[in-house]
Amino acid sequence: MSHSRTVEIEGHIIDSGTMQRCFGAVMDLGGSFDVEQFDVGTHEEAESYCRMAVSADDEETLRAILHELHQNGAVLENPSDVELVAAPADKVVPPNFYSTTNHPTEVLYDGEWIDVERIEMDCALVVDPEPETGPNGGPANGPRAYTKVLNAVDEGDLVATDQSGIRVNPPERPRSGGGAFGFMQGGVSSERPSESTIREVAAELREVKSTGGNVMVVAGPAVVHSGAGEALARLVDAGYVDSLSAGNGFATHDLERSLYGTSLGMDVETLEHPRKGHKHHIWTISEVIRAGGIEAAVEQGKVTEGVMYQCVENDVDTVLAGSIRDDGPLPDTITDAVEAQNAIREQAHDADIVLMLATLLHSVAVGNCLPSTTKTVCVDINPATVTQLLDRGSAQAVGMVTDIGTFVPTLAEFVLDDGETDGGRTVVTDDDE
Amino acid sequence: MSHSRTVEIEGHIIDSGTMQRCFGAVMDLGGSFDVEQFDVGTHEEAESYCRMAVSADDEETLRAILHELHQNGAVLENPSDVELVAAPADKVVPPNFYSTTNHPTEVLYDGEWIDVERIEMDCALVVDPEPETGPNGGPANGPRAYTKVLNAVDEGDLVATDQSGIRVNPPERPRSGGGAFGFMQGGVSSERPSESTIREVAAELREVKSTGGNVMVVAGPAVVHSGAGEALARLVDAGYVDSLSAGNGFATHDLERSLYGTSLGMDVETLEHPRKGHKHHIWTISEVIRAGGIEAAVEQGKVTEGVMYQCVENDVDTVLAGSIRDDGPLPDTITDAVEAQNAIREQAHDADIVLMLATLLHSVAVGNCLPSTTKTVCVDINPATVTQLLDRGSAQAVGMVTDIGTFVPTLAEFVLDDGETDGGRTVVTDDDE
Amino acid sequence: MSHSRTVEIEGHIIDSGTMQRCFGAVMDLGGSFDVEQFDVGTHEEAESYCRMAVSADDEETLRAILHELHQNGAVLENPSDVELVAAPADKVVPPNFYSTTNHPTEVLYDGEWIDVERIEMDCALVVDPEPETGPNGGPANGPRAYTKVLNAVDEGDLVATDQSGIRVNPPERPRSGGGAFGFMQGGVSSERPSESTIREVAAELREVKSTGGNVMVVAGPAVVHSGAGEALARLVDAGYVDSLSAGNGFATHDLERSLYGTSLGMDVETLEHPRKGHKHHIWTISEVIRAGGIEAAVEQGKVTEGVMYQCVENDVDTVLAGSIRDDGPLPDTITDAVEAQNAIREQAHDADIVLMLATLLHSVAVGNCLPSTTKTVCVDINPATVTQLLDRGSAQAVGMVTDIGTFVPTLAEFVLDDGETDGGRTVVTDDDE
Amino acid sequence: MSHSRTVEIEGHIIDSGTMQRCFGAVMDLGGSFDVEQFDVGTHEEAESYCRMAVSADDEETLRAILHELHQNGAVLENPSDVELVAAPADKVVPPNFYSTTNHPTEVLYDGEWIDVERIEMDCALVVDPEPETGPNGGPANGPRAYTKVLNAVDEGDLVATDQSGIRVNPPERPRSGGGAFGFMQGGVSSERPSESTIREVAAELREVKSTGGNVMVVAGPAVVHSGAGEALARLVDAGYVDSLSAGNGFATHDLERSLYGTSLGMDVETLEHPRKGHKHHIWTISEVIRAGGIEAAVEQGKVTEGVMYQCVENDVDTVLAGSIRDDGPLPDTITDAVEAQNAIREQAHDADIVLMLATLLHSVAVGNCLPSTTKTVCVDINPATVTQLLDRGSAQAVGMVTDIGTFVPTLAEFVLDDGETDGGRTVVTDDDE
Repeated sequence: MSHSRTVEIEGHIIDSGTMQRCFGAVMDLGGSFDVEQFDVGTHEEAESYCRMAVSADDEETLRAILHELHQNGAVLENPSDVELVAAPADKVVPPNFYSTTNHPTEVLYDGEWIDVERIEMDCALVVDPEPETGPNGGPANGPRAYTKVLNAVDEGDLVATDQSGIRVNPPERPRSGGGAFGFMQGGVSSERPSESTIREVAAELREVKSTGGNVMVVAGPAVVHSGAGEALARLVDAGYVDSLSAGNGFATHDLERSLYGTSLGMDVETLEHPRKGHKHHIWTISEVIRAGGIEAAVEQGKVTEGVMYQCVENDVDTVLAGSIRDDGPLPDTITDAVEAQNAIREQAHDADIVLMLATLLHSVAVGNCLPSTTKTVCVDINPATVTQLLDRGSAQAVGMVTDIGTFVPTLAEFVLDDGETDGGRTVVTDDDE
Repeated sequence: MSHSRTVEIEGHIIDSGTMQRCFGAVMDLGGSFDVEQFDVGTHEEAESYCRMAVSADDEETLRAILHELHQNGAVLENPSDVELVAAPADKVVPPNFYSTTNHPTEVLYDGEWIDVERIEMDCALVVDPEPETGPNGGPANGPRAYTKVLNAVDEGDLVATDQSGIRVNPPERPRSGGGAFGFMQGGVSSERPSESTIREVAAELREVKSTGGNVMVVAGPAVVHSGAGEALARLVDAGYVDSLSAGNGFATHDLERSLYGTSLGMDVETLEHPRKGHKHHIWTISEVIRAGGIEAAVEQGKVTEGVMYQCVENDVDTVLAGSIRDDGPLPDTITDAVEAQNAIREQAHDADIVLMLATLLHSVAVGNCLPSTTKTVCVDINPATVTQLLDRGSAQAVGMVTDIGTFVPTLAEFVLDDGETDGGRTVVTDDDE
Repeated sequence: MSHSRTVEIEGHIIDSGTMQRCFGAVMDLGGSFDVEQFDVGTHEEAESYCRMAVSADDEETLRAILHELHQNGAVLENPSDVELVAAPADKVVPPNFYSTTNHPTEVLYDGEWIDVERIEMDCALVVDPEPETGPNGGPANGPRAYTKVLNAVDEGDLVATDQSGIRVNPPERPRSGGGAFGFMQGGVSSERPSESTIREVAAELREVKSTGGNVMVVAGPAVVHSGAGEALARLVDAGYVDSLSAGNGFATHDLERSLYGTSLGMDVETLEHPRKGHKHHIWTISEVIRAGGIEAAVEQGKVTEGVMYQCVENDVDTVLAGSIRDDGPLPDTITDAVEAQNAIREQAHDADIVLMLATLLHSVAVGNCLPSTTKTVCVDINPATVTQLLDRGSAQAVGMVTDIGTFVPTLAEFVLDDGETDGGRTVVTDDDE
Repeated sequence: MSHSRTVEIEGHIIDSGTMQRCFGAVMDLGGSFDVEQFDVGTHEEAESYCRMAVSADDEETLRAILHELHQNGAVLENPSDVELVAAPADKVVPPNFYSTTNHPTEVLYDGEWIDVERIEMDCALVVDPEPETGPNGGPANGPRAYTKVLNAVDEGDLVATDQSGIRVNPPERPRSGGGAFGFMQGGVSSERPSESTIREVAAELREVKSTGGNVMVVAGPAVVHSGAGEALARLVDAGYVDSLSAGNGFATHDLERSLYGTSLGMDVETLEHPRKGHKHHIWTISEVIRAGGIEAAVEQGKVTEGVMYQCVENDVDTVLAGSIRDDGPLPDTITDAVEAQNAIREQAHDADIVLMLATLLHSVAVGNCLPSTTKTVCVDINPATVTQLLDRGSAQAVGMVTDIGTFVPTLAEFVLDDGETDGGRTVVTDDDE
């Protein structure tokens, strides 16, 4: 095996599974390794360090191995600066461009490791040597690096290629048990009592809010169909939702309950006229269009309750993304997929915890933009949906296969009512922080 | 029960289940009926006729009952002209507008029953008293009626309201067995041997093409992932696909196989580098953008095989609809949901048979536009997807819960190879008709 | 079509779908029909009558058609006595034996129509011309007929063959809406709010108990895993469960919670030691074996709470059926499948309503024994399970795809707590009737 | 943390994930560790060694931690002999009995490590100090240890308690890639082309047979329903199946095809009379009972094709286990669950590879008896079934979510036809070895 390179890996690399994956990758791809140094952290807080030479019979195999090791946090010994190539045209990346992971990442530029901003997977990595401003809007004090989705790449952008000079930091196992939140969990436990898990999610929500964090909710139409809309509206009203990402269907169903539940005498509780219901669906959209949008409909007193009403009243950052199966759509719906993605991306990057409630389409769209460090909760009655959403290497995720119609009300009860009981305090809102 | 109206129903109303649904609706909604005349067709070709008075305690209940009867084909005795109201604004329908079903429909205008064109469910029904042209583009010879989705409604359009003067013709049971194609099938049989069913679908496809019909294929990325892309490409090449409705993901995966399967030595058969594969995904889009689109990429010799290649070569009407989970997207992808729907709508209205292959999103979008008279075949490994797609009152539909990776190759074999064997003739193409 | 017979059909044969199925069967199988008389019930309480000649090209086809018509309630005009043939040996039926449906059935014997007792599908139908006792144990006053499963057939039993002289009475559509209980429902509505449906099931349970009816519960291990055991125990304690049909796994998990939840300090709420849990599973069985069975373990004070405890305390008729995946099993488990089936059969024939909770195996076993007139409620998180269980032509069935861990507690709350609230009375028990 | 013990772990403990799980267990359960020595294997063939002190605040926590470490292969430094306690009665285990894993295990008895025979999970571990015979039937040359399921425990058996003196050897990662067979795979890849995976399974089957191995097939009724019975029969006929484990339903459906497919003219290909089919089902059982069993029915020429026919003709070890949902059953069906388990256990312990085809019940029963070293292939159209079956820590397992009706024919084609093509040799049979 004449082709060889030496890499270094450090951190909680044994208990986070890093070394298992690294050794495994070498063997799976037909290479071999020679560990030159391995310092094992002797207790749970101590990090470990590994330096090993990796060999393969040909350069192509070696590159494939190094690619896998890189994605698990390995860096070449004595790394050189990141290789940058100018994008040849708008929306076109140079050959062998570096495609990002969703893990925290650094680039070595001009001999300094700098953090990559706005981490998101499957993006190009662009370095701006002389940015106009710094990360927080102030004057720049050095080069910056950030991700760019393909359609945001501009001609001339300096795009990272290959992987040298780039360091990925996969999530490490939390030092203490994460409760319901599993570490890089790919499966879903159906053995645990549902109520205990919901209680832990509720505790986490309250923890996030009590520390000024940002809660994002991604919701599908089933939330309303199943009768859980009222509970979600209560959570919004109590300040537990900072942003809502949904579709035209969710919003219309919710608005329809408000428009028809009280004014036209239709029995929303029993939904006795399903076909007529669809006419109401179209009519709801028509009425909102006539009013000039959801906010206008609220202001005009046409909409007086429900999730959308509470989002308007509580200034929740709301994105309604269009889809080819929409009726209407509502004037608030962003029909262009790229524009909608960009809006979702802003929400996702701000979130500290994301609740994905009974929607695969919107959850995948959100998940595509999330760094692996964001906590996620996925709830769906279809196990395949939950598994797919969890399977993204999130550091802390919990999946539940359950009925959304009981999950949300139970969560709201635990968050809101237990909150008052436990401490005797009023429910936290953003203003409290 | 002081509120009463008399309705008439005719056709194969017993064996199509119409009378069962009508009697059931009256009872479910708390009304009562008095059959005044019932002539039963005495043999299978003879139609039946029913006239009955329907009563309820109050007008609202009676209206609900009449609505259900209407949807099942009943018309009021001595019907009056359709009631038309001008749309008050663009994309706004008048109160109590009539929301269409997906069944063939007629309106009574100026004492004449005229067919409603472009049947599609959940639309407004617009009558144009003095159209510029007739249905086939020639000079108009009388008023026309057609459906309009909400966002196509223009201020001043004469929109049907209420349901008087409108006659729905739900699909009737075929007089002879439909083979694999069940009549208004809401479930999916898993008892029948898969191969027999595929053989019947193949026979249907060949029948449709031999009579000059139009075949529409709706395909999800799993078609390519599962290795079935080659078989679909063969069907396209042999002239069995008139239109393809898919998404950015399907097209990119297919193009990627062509771009990387042969030129870069990656083993597409075993997909050994899944992560690297995603970089290839982005790179594929970037390359197609650089070329100027899929057709340009084919013309420049960059893409030389696969489904998209065959679609370009065979002038297949192709729509790629965007979604918020897309990468890129490809320049051919229609990112605006409304624009994409309109393109899909054109395809759907032209189709005689639709194959829905492993995609819920695109299949629902297509299904929303289909009249109930179009034959549909739904294949997915998820039973819930198949059930949802079949549950639209299609007159002739077949659902299969099976692996798309084996369905498409088997179908192609039965369509193409059996075709040559059976008759010794070359495979039919559109030119043959 | 030279082969022809005339049949009669009567009852609510239009709105129950009977005529649709009959006409459909003739057409599907390639025959033809000639309606000689059709009297349509002119209002919802009036029955209809149809007499028609059915023809086919050959006798075999005609027989297939007549078989289908028979199963839908048709009888030959001027029927002759049932044809009986003695069983040639134990567990062996004569050629062309009649295989029962699960619908109420009569046989014409000696010119008299007599009811078939213990209706159950896929059985032989045996006539006893000179029974020792009558149906209710008193002196016999004429011949009797009843179903026998194959392994209960004795040599010499007079077994019905062919279908002449046998009349099936498929369930008819209830004259008023059945609430959550659909009529011959093959699908499952996921559109209705879960809570409304559970409330209707609760109302039905209370109605059944208030009229002295018998409630059977079929429960899988997930009831305990999901934390719903306590709620089920409350229902048993309150007298809402007359019989319990479950397996060794359900009972052991339930007993384990009682044995280890309080005495050994294991945290049953969080189940922190799943592997150790399995050791507890085996140990629980071992301890019950040592005690001499579940009842003995309760009497000895070893088991003090839970479903099994309440079943012993409340004299609930309990059957634990063995399975090849059991550990142990408990001494109370009936390990022989035939013996267990017979025990289940007794429970099923006594039940007025059956709750099938998160178990396919036991639910199918119970469903196999149920007449189509017994109300059933099927709850499972897997839609395929619910669909399969409902697909038996039950006259009144409700299916819910939901989390059993929230269904049972919600049901118990509606049954027990609303019960007290609504009427101020104490909860009904069997003794009240 | 005053409670502490020192443990040792050795082997491929990094790349097999052992150390990750051990460190994780300590942290999850609230303990801490102090690594005293860690020798890392410097290349892929070199084993590693770890010695560490584990501490906890109380003895109970420490015991819980040591339990987890034990299950992952850790042993106490300077281990003492296994602690044995006599079983107090038949089917009763002593307090704190040791419950086995499904991994290879050794016990330290009289200062010697001896292998535990007949490894199976959730059993008692019994040591026989003075056995009459040795493991292979010859004279004993020392003490023996083996597993016993609870109901096989006899009064006086020396049962292992606690875990000291017991060493578990979890499966280690294969040194080279396992192809389709994943290492301790808990999920199921749906990204790989189905055909490639089936080809790898076929290669594995041929490899096993070419080395004299034992192939066990577990089959559900869907194998016959889906039309795959013929392909399975071909595999049996070609000598690729050593044992068949199925139920009464599978066997009856298969026999019915033979009895009715040719003799009575029923169209088995299209299954046109589903209800009549069930009558045939009962009749088939009745006929086999009359013949005296399946083998007798074959000998009498009544059954002339199909899987059961081939099993009789090829002396395949066949177990038909009864279930409470059986009709009949056939006289060959073992109706007692415990007796059936014992028969299945013998098959499972002999198997080198197990194909689990479209049956959850029988697959779980078989899986319960399998050591983690047996290769398993699980195929089902329900992803949840595949996941559940794979989730047992098998060292080499492959799961496929696909249609059994296409899997088995494709497998048979690859095994049988490719076999002849590749080498020009006739297909291997047991006699070849």
